[in-house]
Amino acid sequence: MNLPQKVRIVEVGPRDGLQNEKQLVPADTKVELIRRLAAAGLPAIEATAFVSPRWVPQMADHAEVLARVLGGAAPAGPDYPVLTPNLQGFEAALAAGAREVAVFGAASESFSRKNINCSIAESLERFRPVTEAARAAGVRVRGYVSCVAGCPYEGPVTPGKVAEVAETLLGMGCYEISLGDTIGTGNPASISRMLETVARRVPVERLAGHYHDTYGMAAANVYASLQMGVAVFDASVGGLGGCPYAAGASGNVATEELVWLFAGMGIETGVDLDVLVDVAAWISAQLGRAPASRVARAVLAKRAKAGV
Amino acid sequence: MNLPQKVRIVEVGPRDGLQNEKQLVPADTKVELIRRLAAAGLPAIEATAFVSPRWVPQMADHAEVLARVLGGAAPAGPDYPVLTPNLQGFEAALAAGAREVAVFGAASESFSRKNINCSIAESLERFRPVTEAARAAGVRVRGYVSCVAGCPYEGPVTPGKVAEVAETLLGMGCYEISLGDTIGTGNPASISRMLETVARRVPVERLAGHYHDTYGMAAANVYASLQMGVAVFDASVGGLGGCPYAAGASGNVATEELVWLFAGMGIETGVDLDVLVDVAAWISAQLGRAPASRVARAVLAKRAKAGV
Repeated sequence: MNLPQKVRIVEVGPRDGLQNEKQLVPADTKVELIRRLAAAGLPAIEATAFVSPRWVPQMADHAEVLARVLGGAAPAGPDYPVLTPNLQGFEAALAAGAREVAVFGAASESFSRKNINCSIAESLERFRPVTEAARAAGVRVRGYVSCVAGCPYEGPVTPGKVAEVAETLLGMGCYEISLGDTIGTGNPASISRMLETVARRVPVERLAGHYHDTYGMAAANVYASLQMGVAVFDASVGGLGGCPYAAGASGNVATEELVWLFAGMGIETGVDLDVLVDVAAWISAQLGRAPASRVARAVLAKRAKAGV
Repeated sequence: MNLPQKVRIVEVGPRDGLQNEKQLVPADTKVELIRRLAAAGLPAIEATAFVSPRWVPQMADHAEVLARVLGGAAPAGPDYPVLTPNLQGFEAALAAGAREVAVFGAASESFSRKNINCSIAESLERFRPVTEAARAAGVRVRGYVSCVAGCPYEGPVTPGKVAEVAETLLGMGCYEISLGDTIGTGNPASISRMLETVARRVPVERLAGHYHDTYGMAAANVYASLQMGVAVFDASVGGLGGCPYAAGASGNVATEELVWLFAGMGIETGVDLDVLVDVAAWISAQLGRAPASRVARAVLAKRAKAGV
């Protein structure tokens, strides 16, 4: 079997993770988190979201966080994409120095309406001026498709719908399409079928897997995706964020779990697992809890036993 | 890809799970747990271990538990294997009515010495009279091999050593060999390589996967094993047992996580997920904690949200 020899991990903890945290996290903590993630070797760290503070108070400090990160508070080297749902957000991101932005579409009509208050088609039209302005400014655009395996309101989502939205985002100029199993109901069989359908319309080199671990399937889904040729995966340090659709359930797959998986399989990531576990422990402590991931717990338990 | 259409789950919670619990669990609770697991549809439930109470006080009530289970406290139908490390244990199990027993070997010399105080070769010789007595009594014998991916004392274990021990157990008359990733360090690539080697010497229909979720890889390892043709998997309801080698880390993969995986993939197990989640919640409450598995937490969180 021909698996990728190298994988790119896109760290989404500071945005997708913290966005779902109820307690307001200070900008200092966010900037320090991003700095530590970069030091662990992450090649891309989604830094914040340029969304209205009315909707997402947690991201109200987006301009400050991004400017500090790009101004030297975090090392140069990694990409620091930011979420920009519309032209207004894009312009604010650009003013703060953004070199990469991300737009966020859904493969489920109900989810699109409940999450961003418009139809899928309307949301895509809203992204068009963003991708055009980004092209003019020389800024890269990443596209997200959410609900690629299931929707909290509709249940299963057809792979054809995912492919359609992914292809539209690619056509608008997105350099990469991140396929999000937002509620974690995908399994290796359904994720493989979905990828097979999407890859007929979007080259697999342009696809990323963004899998939630709500039902403990993220690592299995990543393995299935590797077998389909996918070599970019999103993850959130310490499993930050939880699941906004079921309090107490897990959300984003933990970055350290994917790094552990790839390291064991001899797949290069450039990330230092031990440093990353330190980051997971640190940010979890900042949030007043133990790290949610099995890898962090196992590594920390082994360290405790060894007395280091 | 040709995956098995039907999978057999061997529930090991009452033995492998509870054996690692520090608090002594009353026989009443054990029997009730086994009854509930049978009601959930599990086709095989490892009930207890006929080991010396000096070494494993938690299993001191083995004769009582097995006799009550077989005497009608749990429904007839499922297999109720019990662990028997030697002839003395086997005879006690037989006296209590056992129709199936299990012997437990290791693929790592250091683990064998530390765990059962003898070499691998010596342990296998100790099983021979057990398998002979079992044959004479018409009792089925299942064989375990532990440390199939790694050893807590030696690190990585070579697939050839696993194959050798598995083949010896098969030759003694074990009807099935359960391959245990005791410390959970296996990943889909190493588990696939191990299975490929073992399957050259033991027919894959005789193999079972027994994977621990210490690093969150059990579901991925099960998926890799399905792709190799393995169709029997061990699991522990609620992830009972934890990890004896690192306090605070996860142990046995949770049965409900495997049932969820197979159900999603359209693979038949005969197990009712909702009833099983109830069992996970019940035994976890008996032990004074929340269920450890992501599936149990997600299902219970969804129920709470729906107000049912």
